[in-house]
Order: sequence, then structure tokens, then C-alpha cells
Amino acid sequence: MANAKDFTKILLDESEMPTQWYNLIADLPTPPPPPLHPGTLQPVGPQDLAPLFPMDLIMQEVTTDRYVDIPGEVLDVYKTWRPSPLYRARRLEKALGTPARIYYKYEGVSPAGSHKPNTAVPQAFYNKKAGIKKITTETGAGQWGTALSYACALFGIECEVWQVGASYDAKPYRRLMMEVFGAKVHRSPSNLTEAGRKLGADPKNQSGSLGIAISEAVEMAAKDPSTAYALGSVLNHVLMHQTIIGEEALKQLAKVGETPDLLIGCTGGGSNFAGLSFPFMREKLAGKMNPEIRAVEPASCPSLTQGVYAYDFGDTAGMTPLMKMHTLGHDFIPDPIHAGGLRYHGMAPLISHVYELGLLTAQAVPQTECFEAAVQFARTEGIVPAPEPTHAIAVAIQEALKAKESGEEKVILTALCGHGHFDLAAYDNFLSGKMVDENITPERFAESIAKIPAVK
Amino acid sequence: MANAKDFTKILLDESEMPTQWYNLIADLPTPPPPPLHPGTLQPVGPQDLAPLFPMDLIMQEVTTDRYVDIPGEVLDVYKTWRPSPLYRARRLEKALGTPARIYYKYEGVSPAGSHKPNTAVPQAFYNKKAGIKKITTETGAGQWGTALSYACALFGIECEVWQVGASYDAKPYRRLMMEVFGAKVHRSPSNLTEAGRKLGADPKNQSGSLGIAISEAVEMAAKDPSTAYALGSVLNHVLMHQTIIGEEALKQLAKVGETPDLLIGCTGGGSNFAGLSFPFMREKLAGKMNPEIRAVEPASCPSLTQGVYAYDFGDTAGMTPLMKMHTLGHDFIPDPIHAGGLRYHGMAPLISHVYELGLLTAQAVPQTECFEAAVQFARTEGIVPAPEPTHAIAVAIQEALKAKESGEEKVILTALCGHGHFDLAAYDNFLSGKMVDENITPERFAESIAKIPAVK
Repeated sequence: MANAKDFTKILLDESEMPTQWYNLIADLPTPPPPPLHPGTLQPVGPQDLAPLFPMDLIMQEVTTDRYVDIPGEVLDVYKTWRPSPLYRARRLEKALGTPARIYYKYEGVSPAGSHKPNTAVPQAFYNKKAGIKKITTETGAGQWGTALSYACALFGIECEVWQVGASYDAKPYRRLMMEVFGAKVHRSPSNLTEAGRKLGADPKNQSGSLGIAISEAVEMAAKDPSTAYALGSVLNHVLMHQTIIGEEALKQLAKVGETPDLLIGCTGGGSNFAGLSFPFMREKLAGKMNPEIRAVEPASCPSLTQGVYAYDFGDTAGMTPLMKMHTLGHDFIPDPIHAGGLRYHGMAPLISHVYELGLLTAQAVPQTECFEAAVQFARTEGIVPAPEPTHAIAVAIQEALKAKESGEEKVILTALCGHGHFDLAAYDNFLSGKMVDENITPERFAESIAKIPAVK
Repeated sequence: MANAKDFTKILLDESEMPTQWYNLIADLPTPPPPPLHPGTLQPVGPQDLAPLFPMDLIMQEVTTDRYVDIPGEVLDVYKTWRPSPLYRARRLEKALGTPARIYYKYEGVSPAGSHKPNTAVPQAFYNKKAGIKKITTETGAGQWGTALSYACALFGIECEVWQVGASYDAKPYRRLMMEVFGAKVHRSPSNLTEAGRKLGADPKNQSGSLGIAISEAVEMAAKDPSTAYALGSVLNHVLMHQTIIGEEALKQLAKVGETPDLLIGCTGGGSNFAGLSFPFMREKLAGKMNPEIRAVEPASCPSLTQGVYAYDFGDTAGMTPLMKMHTLGHDFIPDPIHAGGLRYHGMAPLISHVYELGLLTAQAVPQTECFEAAVQFARTEGIVPAPEPTHAIAVAIQEALKAKESGEEKVILTALCGHGHFDLAAYDNFLSGKMVDENITPERFAESIAKIPAVK
């Protein structure tokens, strides 16, 4: 950097973009427990997943290789927005009066407005390579559906999306954006699937959930050999595709001679958090740095801090393999908070495993605190965050204020995983004083947790 | 560039960002005609403008210096998104099968999502420096209002925005974005001003226009010495602030050894077009390159191709100085097309002057062709354009297809001045087959042109 001490953002040239994804499993002291077939309770093999995913992705799901090459066709598309900028939040720091240095990796520069295209593009690429004609998926707030619609448009694949009812109703622009990219979008629960008809019959399910939408998309894909299913988070290969975020951030911080003391990411399914943190976890495991790595989840859907670590279904209808993860129970329906992307009952099995290994900490935050932080962020840094990363921003501000008390020049790194251009109704709700905090009783968690299938 | 031949986008480091704005007037063979006081018909002097603008901006409005230094405080804010990327539209080129090389300078990376912060930030800075407490302004589609709200938030100034009724109704998210930045937003025509009450009484004015909204904002600013007015286009100093776009593009093209054969920009008030093209016009006037420079306007509001070159008011109520420009008449109300930012009855006096000098060409395009081009652009390049730049994209595609016919390896440079995240209702209108083309009769132009005040 020519003006290293004055910089606002740290950019990398396209030629400095990482060309491999990182697989944390290769560096863990013990491997994560395998997913189990719900009928036999035996570990799921590649062939069990073949009706839903192309073999290249299945092999990435189970690989123990430390690095996987990113195909040239994917790198070409990544260059549309990658390497993404790493910002120093100088105006926010000044407003807080903190000695902490706050960095944020901004993924909202992607065409879909979030980190999701990092995995949507390779997923579309590998499906195209395998001759797949159509991909089905679920989406919550719409970030993932938009990303997959975009990726499918580039590779000439049809895309059909089941969007969680609460978000479908609240965010019509998200649906329209998917349609601009050529996708077909349904409100979930829909009448198009058996799962949708069955689950939709229960009034408590009418606002939908990611678990229900997954059931619908999986059902449609399983029916037709030329249709595959794609998931935007949770699975190992999805988390691995996102590691390009952290790999870039490592290079960017190195350019200005910084080492983080604290990493903060929001967690729903966990892909954004894993993408930022796994490369730093590698460095931590190798003894090269020692940051605290903290996952922040919504108080309404706190799978890490309030869930149990158990084998559970990934979807509500019970069609997926059983995965060992932190879960609130597969039929838990979170309050319809604005951070739709964080309304998932479980946590990625790999993140859950890493949490059990003591490699990360977790914290839950209520949504009004998140939006208060978001407005302060917007009015200083200029970027209006999506509701999901406001959770990470709220904790970054908490920690920067603690550093002000203690006088510590703490280096905080967080992920601003998407912009909030489609979430302004949520800001309206906050600014007009109508937003309420989640009010979830321990009984409601206990009720759905009790329905988790008993696996030894 | 390490991989010059494979690049997707050309970036500049923050240290390569231009530190001066360019003033085209210094290089023109004749100066543009001065604005006139509507009462005396004498040229307007700096003191006439003092009730509305701080003196620093007034001096920039009248300066004949070739370059003006960008203040350090403004450069610091520019670094939030600048230098902006220059893209090679490889996927679009491939889809068109054209030998043309299409480049686009993307300004949608700014916090407000368009080129408008390039001038909003210095305007807020100079007003703050002059002790101004509040800035009033108008906005059409909302890009300018968002940019000024953002800039005012950073410098701690109040911001009050009159938004054209048609856009206020159609784009609630734009208003919400301004409110997130702390601005107060009114639907124009409003009951808060004399101009609004008077003009709003005529039913044909109910959907509003930029001319009416300007009258309202100017009236409010003129009343109070601690309140100033800011304009998002048209004036010399605004156009000059935007030249950072073209200065960067020149550097970026030089990095890959390209010289444009054709520059294409959309024109409403003209600031985006001027920003891209004026630095290239300097090179053209100096004999260093010879690109055709083309302005593209909407068929519903074609001030360059259907207007007259005459002294006319900048607003509808007749409160501004008379400006020599291409105009459809100050009480012309364009159809409520989706490109709200192009619904202005006049053209920037400096662009009008340059057009008279034969330094640029102009073309009008109907909106369905624009949206057809936009959808093709989104599905190849991944970025959903705002309705305004779809006019430039439509002509870039026309020209790329002509190059395909002729086999010419033409180098086309265009400005993608903003994203369409707040314009998805317009895409819905297009995709559902409901969009209609403008149907304006020559009589309607003639009627408002006849009302232009007679000045020798």
C-alpha cells in the first residue's frame, strides 16, 4: 500500500485472488461425526447423496484434502466482484471514541449483494458440468435465492426457489431480483409439494421456515434425475467455498501489518462465519496467531447458545440425513425476525464440531440492539447492512466500547456479509419505534428440542 | 495489471485516485453563455447566488481554472468507494457475439448506489465549512436525495428532501434509505411551500416533476440564512465534481492499452454524462484521441434531440436564474417513466453549449428497449442496472451489434451510473409485459416550448 497509514479500504488485485478453497477438516485434531442415514442410522455414503447433488460436490463434501483448486470458470466469475474490499471502520471508530481498530470484510459488492455467490457460482458450475438442467433451492431473506438465480443465469441452468413465507411477503423486491435473473419463485409452504401441503396445513407453519422450504426443494429435486438441489449453507462444501473470504482477509491484513485479536461473524446456517473464520482458525491451530473467534446469533434462534448438540434433521419434514449439530429441534419455528437468513433451527455440523472442540465462543443478541448498531454504522460508514450482519456489528461495537473502557488497542475483524437494500422495511420498523425484541421462553426451546430423534 | 489479457475489472489503488476535478470550460474555444437574472436579464453574479449556495461552490461555478483541488476531507470520504471499478463486459460481448470490446465504469459501488455522492460529498463539505446547518434539495428517483442524505450524515448537517411524487409513491425503499441516513423526506408537490401549494393545485402536476421539486427546495432554502440548497446535476460545479469518473476511466483504460472509439452516457440533467465524458473531451480537443461522444436520453424527455436551445428557467415555478440550455420548456411534465432521474425538462447549460459546438452527438431511446437491454445485461454481467443507465446500455448493445455486422473491433466505453436495487418494480412491469413505450406527440413539446420566456 502506498499510503498504508491513511487507507480506508485494502484492495487486492485480481491476480492476488486466492485460487484454492480451504478445508478446515484437514487440520482438526478429530474429524466431525458423519451424517447418518435416517433409516439405517449408518453413515451416509456418496451414493446416498447422488440423487440430490453432482458427484464433484459430493466429493468436496467428504474430502479430507487441505486445499481444493477453484476451477478457472469459477475464478472468472469471482472476478466480477472479488477480491472484495477489506475496510477499516475509521468513521465508526471515531464516533465510538475507541482505541480499537475495527476492520470489516465487505461481501455486499457481489451482484447478489451478499457472500452467497461464493458458493452459488461453483455449485451452478459443477451442476452444469454434470448435465443438470434445473436446480431447486430454498431461501429465507432471499440472499441465497438471489445468488443461485444469478449463478444459474450465467451457466444456463433453470432455477426454482422456495422462499420462506414471512420473507416472501415482506420483501417483494427480493423475489423480483430473482425473477430478473430468470428464476421461478414460490412462497413456502406451497401447494406444489407433499411436504408443503402437509406442513402448510398447520397454522403455526404459515409464515414458513428454512426447514420447511428445504423439505419442499429437496422433494422436487429428488423426483427428477435432471434436477438437482442446492443448499446455501450448513454443508461442508458450502462452508469450504466461502473460505475465500477469510483467505483474502488474511492477505489484506498482512498488507497493513495487522493481526486480529477478535473475529466476529454472524451465524445462521454458518457459511459466512465459516468463510471468514476457518482460514484464521488454521493460523490459530498452527500457533501463528491467537484471535478469539466469536459466533453471534439472534436471540430468537440461538442454536449454539441454547440448543443441544445432537443428531437431528436438516429440514422440518425429516427428509435429509441426520446431522450431528447444535439444534433447537427440526420443527422449531423462530419468530419472524428481520434477519430471515439466521432463522435456521440448526448450526452447520462442522461449526458445531469446532465449537465442541473449544475453538470458538458464541453469543446471542436481540434484534433492536442489532438495528441500533446498524443505524450508527450506516450514518458513519455509509453502508446500510443487511439484518444478518447487524448481529456481528452490534458485538463489534460492544467490544470497541469495552476497549474504550480498558484503553486496549484491540484489533477487531468482522464480516459485513451483505447490504440491506432489500431490508429497508426492517429499518422503517426500527426507526418508527415499532420493533420489538424476541420474547422466547425456555419452554418453547424445550418443546421442539424434545422432538429431536433419539440417536445413541 | 499482472494478467492484463484476462482481466474482468480494472482497479486503481486509493493512492492512484485523482486529486483534482477537471473544468472543461478552460479548454473550450468559447465560454458558455452566462446565466441571467430573471428580473434584470443581466448576467448573474456570485452575490446573486449567495442566498442559496456557500461561496466556495459559487466560485467553483464560475471558475475558469482548468483544475480544482479536491479537499482532503472529501478525498477521505471518496475512498469509501473510489476509485470505482472499470469493467470489461466480457459475458455480454460473448452473448452478443460481437468483436466490439465493451467497457463500463461502475458507480453503483458507492454507498448511495450511484455516481451522485461524487458531488453530494463536496457539497456537504463546503456547506459545513460555511456554517450551514441544513440543506434542502429535490430528488427524482431518489439517487440524488440518498447521496445527499448520506453526505449530510457524515458531516453532521440536517437534510430535507422534496421527492417527485411519482417516484415517492413507486419507490418507498428509496425514502426509507434516506431516512436511515437521517434525512426528512416530503412528497412533492407538498403543502409546505408556496410553490408546492400553487403548482399542486393543477391536477396535471400531481405526479410531480424535478422542476416542481426544485422550486419547493429553493423556496425553503431562500427563507433561512442557515439553510442552503443543493442541486444534484445541471450546474457547472456539479458536473465538475463528477469528472473524477472520467479521470479514473482514462487511467484505467491506459493500464490495458485501450483508447475508446465511442463513449456513451445517459443524460437527464447531465452530470453522469459530463463526469464520464469531459476528461475524454479534453483529450479529444488536445488531439490525443478521437472518440465519438454520445448522449442518450429517454424518448419521453428528449431535451437535446427535441428541445430548443434557449434561455429558460431551471425550475417550474420560475425562481431560478435563466439558463441557456436545450429545453422542452420549464413547465413540461414528462410521462412518469421508470427512469425518474432523467425526467428533467432541460439539459445542463455546459453540455448544451458543448452540443452546440459539435463536440457530441445525441440519441433518444424508448423505455422498453432500455429494459430489454437491462435484462440481458443483468443475466450476463450480473449487475441489475438502474433505469437511467439502461439508456446507455441499450445504445451500447445497438452499437456492439452494428460492429458485429461490420466486423469492427470497436472499443465502446459506457457509464453504469447506478444499480437498480430500488427499481425492481420497474423490472416487474417490464417482465410481466405491462410496460409501454412513451407516446409523446410533437404538439405536447410545442405547447411547453411556446411558454419559454423570450430572451433576445
